[in-house]
Amino acid sequence: MYDFTFSMPTEVHFGKGKENLVGQLIKEKTDKVLFLYGSGSIKKIGVYEKIINSLRDSGIQFTELGGVKSNPRLELVNEGIEICRKESINFILAVGGGSVIDTAKTIAIGVPYEGDVWDFYSGKAKIEKTIPVGAVLTVPATASETNGCAVLTNETGMYKRGLKSDVLKPVFAILNPELTYSLPKYYMAASVVDIFAHVWERYFIKSEHSELLDRLCEGVFKTLITEGPSAVYERGYKSTGEIMWASSIAHNDILGIMGDFGSHRTGHEISAEYDLSHGGSLGITMCAWAKHVYKEDINRFCRFAVNVWDVTYDSDNPEKTALEGIKRMESFIHELGIPTTFKNANLPTDGFEKMAERAIDNGLGYVGGGFKKLYKEDIVNIYKLAE
Amino acid sequence: MYDFTFSMPTEVHFGKGKENLVGQLIKEKTDKVLFLYGSGSIKKIGVYEKIINSLRDSGIQFTELGGVKSNPRLELVNEGIEICRKESINFILAVGGGSVIDTAKTIAIGVPYEGDVWDFYSGKAKIEKTIPVGAVLTVPATASETNGCAVLTNETGMYKRGLKSDVLKPVFAILNPELTYSLPKYYMAASVVDIFAHVWERYFIKSEHSELLDRLCEGVFKTLITEGPSAVYERGYKSTGEIMWASSIAHNDILGIMGDFGSHRTGHEISAEYDLSHGGSLGITMCAWAKHVYKEDINRFCRFAVNVWDVTYDSDNPEKTALEGIKRMESFIHELGIPTTFKNANLPTDGFEKMAERAIDNGLGYVGGGFKKLYKEDIVNIYKLAE
Repeated sequence: MYDFTFSMPTEVHFGKGKENLVGQLIKEKTDKVLFLYGSGSIKKIGVYEKIINSLRDSGIQFTELGGVKSNPRLELVNEGIEICRKESINFILAVGGGSVIDTAKTIAIGVPYEGDVWDFYSGKAKIEKTIPVGAVLTVPATASETNGCAVLTNETGMYKRGLKSDVLKPVFAILNPELTYSLPKYYMAASVVDIFAHVWERYFIKSEHSELLDRLCEGVFKTLITEGPSAVYERGYKSTGEIMWASSIAHNDILGIMGDFGSHRTGHEISAEYDLSHGGSLGITMCAWAKHVYKEDINRFCRFAVNVWDVTYDSDNPEKTALEGIKRMESFIHELGIPTTFKNANLPTDGFEKMAERAIDNGLGYVGGGFKKLYKEDIVNIYKLAE
Repeated sequence: MYDFTFSMPTEVHFGKGKENLVGQLIKEKTDKVLFLYGSGSIKKIGVYEKIINSLRDSGIQFTELGGVKSNPRLELVNEGIEICRKESINFILAVGGGSVIDTAKTIAIGVPYEGDVWDFYSGKAKIEKTIPVGAVLTVPATASETNGCAVLTNETGMYKRGLKSDVLKPVFAILNPELTYSLPKYYMAASVVDIFAHVWERYFIKSEHSELLDRLCEGVFKTLITEGPSAVYERGYKSTGEIMWASSIAHNDILGIMGDFGSHRTGHEISAEYDLSHGGSLGITMCAWAKHVYKEDINRFCRFAVNVWDVTYDSDNPEKTALEGIKRMESFIHELGIPTTFKNANLPTDGFEKMAERAIDNGLGYVGGGFKKLYKEDIVNIYKLAE
């Protein structure tokens, strides 16, 4: 097993009605918060009112800041920082999905920092201090509610950058599966694919494999396969609960700190170019990435086929076994309603060169690398395999 | 999925030579520690010297307290509390297995408490404050290095009691698989069985099952089956590393906060009566418990047989499938060198009534209950099934 450090300090409260605990949980730390949320869907599902009541019952003063959008922007972060400083607020409560929580984290490190908060994303400054963040999750996918990651877009030049630091882990995360019920089918499906991809990136690595981490990854894959379709098409407490907790586990490093992330990086460019959801882009790139790279380690893809998809191992033709696993994954994603090709996603196929060039414009000249480094021609080929 | 709260604030540092980090990790908190250890085997394996050097290099003053034994006792705890108060020490460094770490945790809550530290174990006092504890693990089994549990024996009357509180979670845990190399075969085998039992207790419950938690449990079972024998008989970095990290995961509640613990409770009495190791007693009780209770939920035992032991499901005779799973587990434990019967453990078989009576002398009149409550006659029958 490779060396690692790991902790998960976030206090997870899982269950029905747990959002009513926010007042009490925050009261242990402070009595003044910035209440951050997105488009206002939290008002439709009634969680907004519950939060307000919980805060009031605990005597916590709050200032609201709504309007966080997907691919969160720097402008709103600066507005949040301004409010916190002006009103001496030292706690951010984020109610929403990854975008809201990532915005909250960025405001939280910006408040005690004298310079421009973008400095952390551009590498000019190192994160040392933060004010605490608490999260009430409504969209399971990014694991931002229990991990130390945040992603932000700077409108000036449209730079999208990510951060990772233990300091960014929220102090609490409330997971009530019922809060996902109003999520449109497509978004729940994209979430399941995104969660699958977080495990995928950790499973396909070239460094010494760990039986324990492999088995845990396979357990999460199996759970997504069993519970994903029912979470998407039937909703219901059990299946959405499984997906919600799986989403945290998949991407908070308990399944491993190493990864490839080639499927993610090549997917980001499709999202950016065509405004496709993150999960949607991963449906396209994961399958094509697998077809492009499987020959690098056929045994690994056989293990995936046998242990995750119950494919019978063909000792005369392991390659067939490996490909059957990829095929079954492709069917699974397709059945969730997520396209696995540009054509099915109604996207043009004339931007491959441009997207590949942008993907490698990161100072390295390639993306991925935990399993296989992808250069421009690799990326173009991956896009072609998903044509 | 049932409601739960979970966090794992302990910072885990996994890898070769990580014990050299102790000085630096402690320096972030304080510059004076109590260095607690057991019988002195840490001197033989060289870790003692490394710890001393690391503390010195970081300019940390330390006072040593050795001599912690299995089934740790209150007397040494009180000695530790005394030293910490006298020398204004506010950090405990525990180097050893569960007994050393549990002793450290108890000293740590005793230092800021004005009354008798046993009050926490007897239920007279509630844990509110502690001084921090850091752990360097040499015996993987109890998960005390990352969980909030501690077990202690009060010599006056020989009461053995347990505590559980988030406050008891260590601030860091150092896991270097090499530190287990000198552990005798039998103890490593007993550890593997103990870890297996921690997953077992969470897997066999009657409340609504979670696919995710079941799959994660099955992943840890599979890892123990694959890596356990090699950790016992060959030692080596990979297998002992898998077991070491599995031991934390198995019993720090990431696999679920609910459990039965009937196998543990009935095993404790055998350990107490015949001074048998904890893992040794579990080899006897787990198999017999399974034979006593499997009819309560044959489907569950079939899942265990099929998913953990690769038994082919017999649709004409599911009971046969269930029993085959139990049989394979028994063989596995036996092959590790751990007896599964009183006879094989060279223990007398005339104390069943007495042990059963003592087991239920807990104010409840039964033990277990997450899967099945065990009354006196159940416990006697379990012992008989292991005769």
